[in-house]
Amino acid sequence: MSTDPRLDRLAETAIRVGLGLAPGQELVMTAPVEALPLARLITEHAYKAGASLVTTLLSDDVSALARYKYGREESFDTASGWLFEGMAAAFRNNAARLAIVGDDPTLLSGQNVEHVSRANRARSKAYRPALELISSSAINWTIVAASTPAWAKAVFPDDAPDAAVAKLWDAIFKASRVDNDDPVAAWAAHNKTLHARCDFMNGHRFASLHFRGPGTDLKVGLADGHAWMGGASPAKNGIMCNANIPTEEVFTTPHMLRTEGYVAASKPLAHQGTLIRDIRVRFENGNIVEAHASTGEEVLNRMIGTDEGARRLGEVALVPHANPIGQTGILFLNTLFDENAACHIALGQAYAQCFENPNLPEDELTRRGANRSLIHVDWMIGNAETDLDGIKPDGAVVPLMRQGAWV
Amino acid sequence: MSTDPRLDRLAETAIRVGLGLAPGQELVMTAPVEALPLARLITEHAYKAGASLVTTLLSDDVSALARYKYGREESFDTASGWLFEGMAAAFRNNAARLAIVGDDPTLLSGQNVEHVSRANRARSKAYRPALELISSSAINWTIVAASTPAWAKAVFPDDAPDAAVAKLWDAIFKASRVDNDDPVAAWAAHNKTLHARCDFMNGHRFASLHFRGPGTDLKVGLADGHAWMGGASPAKNGIMCNANIPTEEVFTTPHMLRTEGYVAASKPLAHQGTLIRDIRVRFENGNIVEAHASTGEEVLNRMIGTDEGARRLGEVALVPHANPIGQTGILFLNTLFDENAACHIALGQAYAQCFENPNLPEDELTRRGANRSLIHVDWMIGNAETDLDGIKPDGAVVPLMRQGAWV
Repeated sequence: MSTDPRLDRLAETAIRVGLGLAPGQELVMTAPVEALPLARLITEHAYKAGASLVTTLLSDDVSALARYKYGREESFDTASGWLFEGMAAAFRNNAARLAIVGDDPTLLSGQNVEHVSRANRARSKAYRPALELISSSAINWTIVAASTPAWAKAVFPDDAPDAAVAKLWDAIFKASRVDNDDPVAAWAAHNKTLHARCDFMNGHRFASLHFRGPGTDLKVGLADGHAWMGGASPAKNGIMCNANIPTEEVFTTPHMLRTEGYVAASKPLAHQGTLIRDIRVRFENGNIVEAHASTGEEVLNRMIGTDEGARRLGEVALVPHANPIGQTGILFLNTLFDENAACHIALGQAYAQCFENPNLPEDELTRRGANRSLIHVDWMIGNAETDLDGIKPDGAVVPLMRQGAWV
Repeated sequence: MSTDPRLDRLAETAIRVGLGLAPGQELVMTAPVEALPLARLITEHAYKAGASLVTTLLSDDVSALARYKYGREESFDTASGWLFEGMAAAFRNNAARLAIVGDDPTLLSGQNVEHVSRANRARSKAYRPALELISSSAINWTIVAASTPAWAKAVFPDDAPDAAVAKLWDAIFKASRVDNDDPVAAWAAHNKTLHARCDFMNGHRFASLHFRGPGTDLKVGLADGHAWMGGASPAKNGIMCNANIPTEEVFTTPHMLRTEGYVAASKPLAHQGTLIRDIRVRFENGNIVEAHASTGEEVLNRMIGTDEGARRLGEVALVPHANPIGQTGILFLNTLFDENAACHIALGQAYAQCFENPNLPEDELTRRGANRSLIHVDWMIGNAETDLDGIKPDGAVVPLMRQGAWV
């Protein structure tokens, strides 16, 4: 792949559009070892943009799996806190953060669910200080994707390995808008569209949203003083960044106690190595009171049992069904892509910056309904049959989407 | 290579002999990305031995090189202090340390010497807190080697790439004593031999050593109350470990002010990506006062200019010329191997535990002659013509080696 000009454009887009990396800034990158060719090109573009140092932490699925195969019972509550604390220290020192994702969505499917859950919990807890700096956009950050053999096989099980990897790369390049000569200009135009959508939603100041579709009748109350975000936005260090490449969503913070009704996922959720299918959930007063899935129900229940906030919403996002990702018709089994093909909600931690005042203190965020949790898990609820209304504080109803398209 | 039983034995030897990894202990491993097959097997053996967590930091030469190709002038004084501080925190929390080496010995040969020197200096400074915990054996640690294409090509430039990699693996397996059915027993016997040599040297309580050979007439005064070490030794956390696999040396701490005379290196020194050939050095009162090399002299001079202690000895080590490594006749261009083929000295930081009392405070170490420096660089001075005498405090001379062999 190293000679494909799209790979180099993806690397350049990651640095220039995704991060907006500033001269003199350090970069901390994580990547699956199979994504090394992309990581190398990103490293090259980072130094060309003036990076003071690029450090790449490569992960390896085989080594990760060895823990569940051979590790002892008492070992599953351990996490590499020293490494996560180190990353947090780098971010406090204004390092930018880039993640390349390309995980095998079914890596841990066959492993002991309790072990996986305990290890994830320990990891989430250790990672929290670093994650808070990312999710509060203290620094510029971005996520891009690389096609890897295991991920490609899960997405295209009927293709030969090399063909599957190539097909997934094609889809990534298209979704990431680098299949043209000037991706930086393409992203500027796309950001303009997303910003206009945010302006529209912010102008209305809705109190809640009402989703209807097959298996879904859900009212999502929005946080007091919430603001819609989407596309490029400034991190607190002043640098404009696109935190997801690709991105198609506009999103905001729901009120953690004001979601009512039932909702059916419109796509399977690949969660930490397990595929959860046909999620159906019912909310009362913002809390999940019933949760079902046709496969992976135990993983789902452990996930929402992580802490009090794991049963509540931390994000709601609007995505028209017709967009470059949805149009591929591919089920990517990866949140970065699938969440940008459909309207979605996330359980867990809210984004503190989705408020008219993006610098609210913790207690004020809670008062306005922003959720807190160790987790932040997006899952897809929109499809070509989704109808969406906005409801104003006075009860007035504004049709927003019909059959998955903006009205 | 993953089906070669010697690779699995090397992994098992690294965990059981090298580290003596304790159940419940965390492991921090570093490895070149090309050594991933060995790193995976080591991870497997670590979990089988009861590791609580294995974290592997993979390094990539292409990414490392990108910094020198594309980095800006002001960037070369930066180091990933957050990562090194994280490693130090892991060691303070009793994590074990394993390094797989397999570096390209000529990676940085063509790069700007001043940039390389500044980057190394920044790295050494940032790494110091972690390195001190290793070099003082606060925790159990070990180094093993993996054959990589770039290293193998430097060692066997006339062979085809695959043949070179296979030949280097053969040499590594032989030197690491895993080319037999029971490497753990082979290492027990070898440790016994090395311990007997230490006992012999410690029994004599020499004041100094006198090396003679082609281009060499060097008197190395030993630190007051020094002790000889070699083979397995207990770390301060109580765990017996073999810090180098392979190892053939017995070594101690010289007095930093008591080395006199001249010495010629018997092999080229591969130092941080540059090959330094034909080192010739003269000492007065422990300090280098003249330094020459036929290639890499600028790198040599920058190295000894790192700090005051970089011009002084921190280690002297005795290795008979006839041993499994020397017998291969291979110039490995890697200190782990070449230093174990020949008597050697090291410039820079001394080992605090090479004393009869291995827990001396810093000021007492200095009083006894232990050197301090950001660097610790071993280079080879012994060969088949080396004669070595031990000199007692009363001036009595004891012949120790003749023509590279123990008397």
